[in-house]
Amino acid sequence: MDAADFKDFSKAMSDYIVEYLSNIRDRQVVPSVKPGYLRPLVPEQAPEKAEPWTAVMADIERVVMSGVTHWQSPRFHAYFPTANSYPSIVADMLSDAIACIGFTWIASPACTELEVVMLDWLGQMIGLPESFLARSGGEAGGVIQGTASEATLVALLGAKAKAMQRVKQEHPEWTEYEILSKLVGYCNKQAHSSVERAGLLGGVKLRSLKPDGKRKLRGETLQEAVEEDIRNGLIPFFAVATLGTTSSCAFDALDEIGDVCNAHNIWLHVDAAYAGSAFICPEFRYLMKGVEKADSYNFNPHKWMLVNFDCSAMWLKQPRWIVNAFNVDPLYLKHDMQGMAPDYRHWQIPLGRRFRSLKLWFVLRLYGVENLQKYIRKHIQLAHKFEELCISDQRFELYEEVTMGLVCFRLKGNNEINEELLKRINGRGKIHLVPSKIDDTYFLRLAICSAFTEESDIHVSWEEVKAAADEVFKAM
Amino acid sequence: MDAADFKDFSKAMSDYIVEYLSNIRDRQVVPSVKPGYLRPLVPEQAPEKAEPWTAVMADIERVVMSGVTHWQSPRFHAYFPTANSYPSIVADMLSDAIACIGFTWIASPACTELEVVMLDWLGQMIGLPESFLARSGGEAGGVIQGTASEATLVALLGAKAKAMQRVKQEHPEWTEYEILSKLVGYCNKQAHSSVERAGLLGGVKLRSLKPDGKRKLRGETLQEAVEEDIRNGLIPFFAVATLGTTSSCAFDALDEIGDVCNAHNIWLHVDAAYAGSAFICPEFRYLMKGVEKADSYNFNPHKWMLVNFDCSAMWLKQPRWIVNAFNVDPLYLKHDMQGMAPDYRHWQIPLGRRFRSLKLWFVLRLYGVENLQKYIRKHIQLAHKFEELCISDQRFELYEEVTMGLVCFRLKGNNEINEELLKRINGRGKIHLVPSKIDDTYFLRLAICSAFTEESDIHVSWEEVKAAADEVFKAM
Repeated sequence: MDAADFKDFSKAMSDYIVEYLSNIRDRQVVPSVKPGYLRPLVPEQAPEKAEPWTAVMADIERVVMSGVTHWQSPRFHAYFPTANSYPSIVADMLSDAIACIGFTWIASPACTELEVVMLDWLGQMIGLPESFLARSGGEAGGVIQGTASEATLVALLGAKAKAMQRVKQEHPEWTEYEILSKLVGYCNKQAHSSVERAGLLGGVKLRSLKPDGKRKLRGETLQEAVEEDIRNGLIPFFAVATLGTTSSCAFDALDEIGDVCNAHNIWLHVDAAYAGSAFICPEFRYLMKGVEKADSYNFNPHKWMLVNFDCSAMWLKQPRWIVNAFNVDPLYLKHDMQGMAPDYRHWQIPLGRRFRSLKLWFVLRLYGVENLQKYIRKHIQLAHKFEELCISDQRFELYEEVTMGLVCFRLKGNNEINEELLKRINGRGKIHLVPSKIDDTYFLRLAICSAFTEESDIHVSWEEVKAAADEVFKAM
Repeated sequence: MDAADFKDFSKAMSDYIVEYLSNIRDRQVVPSVKPGYLRPLVPEQAPEKAEPWTAVMADIERVVMSGVTHWQSPRFHAYFPTANSYPSIVADMLSDAIACIGFTWIASPACTELEVVMLDWLGQMIGLPESFLARSGGEAGGVIQGTASEATLVALLGAKAKAMQRVKQEHPEWTEYEILSKLVGYCNKQAHSSVERAGLLGGVKLRSLKPDGKRKLRGETLQEAVEEDIRNGLIPFFAVATLGTTSSCAFDALDEIGDVCNAHNIWLHVDAAYAGSAFICPEFRYLMKGVEKADSYNFNPHKWMLVNFDCSAMWLKQPRWIVNAFNVDPLYLKHDMQGMAPDYRHWQIPLGRRFRSLKLWFVLRLYGVENLQKYIRKHIQLAHKFEELCISDQRFELYEEVTMGLVCFRLKGNNEINEELLKRINGRGKIHLVPSKIDDTYFLRLAICSAFTEESDIHVSWEEVKAAADEVFKAM
């Protein structure tokens, strides 16, 4: 493909994208295809000869769009949002064109340095203490991970390295595997599945602790677990506090948890994957009270801050624990400037990394903090609108207080009618929701996901929920 | 940013990209900036108000390009290539616009299914046995990982899960930590640093074995190590065969290693990160002889097959070991079609994933197999051209046989003059190379990296090397 063709092709794609996003609410949000739908639509082998780009363009609707779940549609209320914006798309074009790999500083200084500074910008925007920022002049700073799963794993591995070193000094007679068998970490039972998975990957015990009646993990609960484990000869080393759980967007009592962790030399990681974007609005920062007691902090601008996946922002007060734990240093990756700037390859699981900070830079500048705050506030307001509609109907109840862009609700009554409700909502094919279950109570989650959602869309979604409820009661 | 602005902005970016790539060889390949260069060039905080896109566009040269190492320049010969192509850039635009997360089938059926089929296309292109492909109808199949590092880690974790289960059955009296302390894996001393890192991350012993005089790991060496370890009460469970080492592009004796692994129930993973792309040309497949004995196979189309990072293709014969090892299954991720199509979240470290197969689809169709083969052959031919120039100069010697697009060479004599040579080559600022060292012999690596490299560029690079050598001898 030559330059002239690329100009035509990218122009055609821009036009297609605008058309797609502008009319996205008219598409069926979840496709009705069955597993295996795509294979018969394409040849069994790659073509021997080059095809024209117009042939590929012509296949997009037929092959791809017919099987896409439209996450950017205002009718999509499942999971949590994943971000999408025009500035971010253009930034990725540039990142792809430069196509550098930023594993060390010298491998592309701009790639490392823009990331360092963007994470300082972002850290200031959410009110992170200076002790997390590179601008403080110490070793602390931010890094862009691919996902919150990786950030949690990186934090756990750092915590493990730190604990191993300490215990080895205290008990030189213990083997590595003996120490490993004693390490224990903690999280809310409602923490994301990736936290449990990080424990499995890291090969350490992770205890899921019971939250209070508001689904929050409390300091007292953690304190009791830590004391119990110490009595049993275990070594508490790691805790995850979740700000905005996936099931119901509950917030752990970070301030209390921080005290327990600091008192017992436990690495505290904060997972604010979804809700963290809201902290760019000062009125929500009460939910992150105690953050200065944490060792690492993570949230996903690629969820709720208009930066396309993947952009998971993580800050570490002492990156040395992860840098030193996995430092393998072949000659072909050495350079003269080592130690004068971060070599991000040591801060993450993979070696390679894209120029991802460009997306952050474009989005922050082309929206400005003001418009990003407006965006967050609007989504939260829309969630409250749905909440209002929901409680105005006597048949419904809320499962959880609405603080962010998520509404957890259910029909008053047993789980079965709520399972039936969800089945009918999704079956009608107009909107898409997923359920959750806490302590045997099944409920529905409606997340405000799309950048295009307006109040009229909320009414449409509510009408769908109401109509499905009518069906449920009619069928009883 | 509204749709009209996006059209203008993306058009301006397309034009910029064409200009950048068309004239890339005129740019200084490695920037002369010092650590910390970027911070003073941008404000200390994110802007409060939105800026126009023209302001961002105007800053690209000043802030970003001034600090970029130009990996796509024909003057860039460091590391290994990272791919870049027009079709791939446009595919990423579409992926960003759809912005779905493909963690389960239902989360976006097209995202999963196109990946399944593209990995079948690709597997056939490189002559992988059917036992690796989804089209065989069994559980086997391919997946796109972010990097080869992640693929190696996934393979190691699968091997670990499989071995743990087997040993637990044989020795129910042993604890998990006892078993873990006995597990041992193997790789060539010349394997990539990410293999050692996977061992560290997975918490298992990994032995680096001495290759033969041609830098190949041989079956006999592995056999001896395995027998020794078994005598010492250890449990061999995993081996990595490298096809195309990073240091010198040597190829392990896969066929021999495969026999040893199969005889001892050892999971064999093949890391063909760079060289694997060459197997789309049948004449190079002799180097992957024995691949049918492997359990998992990986190479990076994002290195040498014109698909932008990140696209690391991995095939697993028995994905069940990785799927079951880390299967955490919250209600909000369950769906009705489970088991009828892969849920790729179980095949990888992170939960989230982009629609990456679009890049592969666009590249395979817009080049066709024929042109991709031409591309590989041309790069190898250019490497042989440099080899020819090099050996025509009596002062130089080759360190390693040239089989792919990498030339390993040095000045006859001690390491010091070769260190001096590299320093002068990079110091002159025209081309960029990195060194390597094997068994105390220091040498220079010249990789053919750019899609724009022509024979005339090879002459330019050779002239630079020669001129630097002249300087070295003059200064002596």
